[in-house]
Amino acid sequence: MSSGIEIQHLSKQYEKKTILHDINLKFEPKTIYGLLGRNGAGKSTLLGLISDRIFPTQGRILFNAEMIHDNDQILGQFYLMSEVDLYPNRRRVRQLFRDTEQLYGEFNRKYADELVKKFGLDDSSQYGKLSTGYRTIVKLIIALCVPATYIFLDEPVLGLDANHRDIFYRELVETYTERPRTFVISTHLIEEIANLIEQVVVIKSGRVLVDDSSEALIAESYAITGPKNVVDSFVSGLNVIGSETLGNLKAAYVFGALDDRPIPDVITIEHMDLQKLFVNLTNEEETQNDAL
Amino acid sequence: MSSGIEIQHLSKQYEKKTILHDINLKFEPKTIYGLLGRNGAGKSTLLGLISDRIFPTQGRILFNAEMIHDNDQILGQFYLMSEVDLYPNRRRVRQLFRDTEQLYGEFNRKYADELVKKFGLDDSSQYGKLSTGYRTIVKLIIALCVPATYIFLDEPVLGLDANHRDIFYRELVETYTERPRTFVISTHLIEEIANLIEQVVVIKSGRVLVDDSSEALIAESYAITGPKNVVDSFVSGLNVIGSETLGNLKAAYVFGALDDRPIPDVITIEHMDLQKLFVNLTNEEETQNDAL
Repeated sequence: MSSGIEIQHLSKQYEKKTILHDINLKFEPKTIYGLLGRNGAGKSTLLGLISDRIFPTQGRILFNAEMIHDNDQILGQFYLMSEVDLYPNRRRVRQLFRDTEQLYGEFNRKYADELVKKFGLDDSSQYGKLSTGYRTIVKLIIALCVPATYIFLDEPVLGLDANHRDIFYRELVETYTERPRTFVISTHLIEEIANLIEQVVVIKSGRVLVDDSSEALIAESYAITGPKNVVDSFVSGLNVIGSETLGNLKAAYVFGALDDRPIPDVITIEHMDLQKLFVNLTNEEETQNDAL
Repeated sequence: MSSGIEIQHLSKQYEKKTILHDINLKFEPKTIYGLLGRNGAGKSTLLGLISDRIFPTQGRILFNAEMIHDNDQILGQFYLMSEVDLYPNRRRVRQLFRDTEQLYGEFNRKYADELVKKFGLDDSSQYGKLSTGYRTIVKLIIALCVPATYIFLDEPVLGLDANHRDIFYRELVETYTERPRTFVISTHLIEEIANLIEQVVVIKSGRVLVDDSSEALIAESYAITGPKNVVDSFVSGLNVIGSETLGNLKAAYVFGALDDRPIPDVITIEHMDLQKLFVNLTNEEETQNDAL
């Protein structure tokens, strides 16, 4: 019997627009996932479906082989931190913590108090009076302190300054080490989470484009630089996902095996980092030629 | 007679809380400013005051030596793109462009159409149906196409993916070159705008901490690395704004002149980049020792 979340042939349409198309994915226990994709690719819709806030047009989602739909016992193990502000503006932060404790039956108050201090949050403030960054911080603290074992973080660092982002990344690693659970993180600051995520899912225009480990992805990603004509002839027949030119020099980005072709002296081959790989993988045709 | 915006002894309190304290600043014509500061430092409040959306407790704001308050002729030259969603959810993007044209008497529709295409925005969509990233994009496009000569961008890349951020930075440079005007950009992705901004204003806990050119700031910022005891004795008496240690090694961050002290062979001195400088300048005492 499979454990974890299993998404089978999931599609979602709004009016006549297809947002997600035949998604098949697994989220295993105790793993940190990066859920990456361009603005409007369908990431938030996918997270909404997994947490049963919206419903699929086709397909189904299972957890430990049981349907998640309307299954409170399963959904109590999931927590979605979303961009949408669900909290009443007048409610004080402390009260929100208590509300969550009531709802989930459990809440790590000690850790929440620690995080309040570390982030410099005034927990007697009304939620609606906080800046964008601090509203995100409240949602983050709740997400890290609920007893759920599958935590979905949609844009967890929206509006956070560099110091606060740093604190969040460190806390994530620490709390994950102490109590391993699954985190699915959707963010546009890929560089910053690249070292945290073990598995990468890339959604492009409503379809799964990549579903692999970070390690495997980087191992198969190359930046090949050198004189334009030499680079062009070297990469011919390879899976070139993007390129940039500077005068007579060219960088070609290749995803996939390089085979055994001989490497000319004048070119350099390096692995791309995750952000570079991702930008090139998800770039639309029409903007690709537009690169600096 | 001074031209541009002049802020004199500006203070703002909410209930008993001081948000801004005795702010004195100038924003000159045709200059790109970075307005930097931690979450909750008072940046958005300052921008709200400059655009006369909220009113100071003390002090005043002048434009070309005239008071801005209730002065429609002046305020028509300012444009604030804020995090707050002011647009009706049901209004279509195209209609919002038309609304803006009516309000400002002018609107660069040709450029707006170009940007719609470059960002891959569906301008027949209702505003409220767009993702966070695309809502930001709509606001950005409007900000770049209004005839105003002072444009304030509060978190202009909130929720934007890496490709879209790239497009924005390029367009900003291009439109600025074609039609120089003042941009004041408040963002937490400092690294990404470091090369764009000419002047830096840092707000810390409601006060102006830094007001200088990027060039001058970087020239006065040093990262000094080497064996802990050598670094410690070298930086004694200097303005150390932060440090990190790794085993026996230490990096000390210094802001200000190094004087003529002799430099031991075993230490390395480099300039800090803007993001590093800023993180260290704005870091609170209690989190500084917490650094990795």
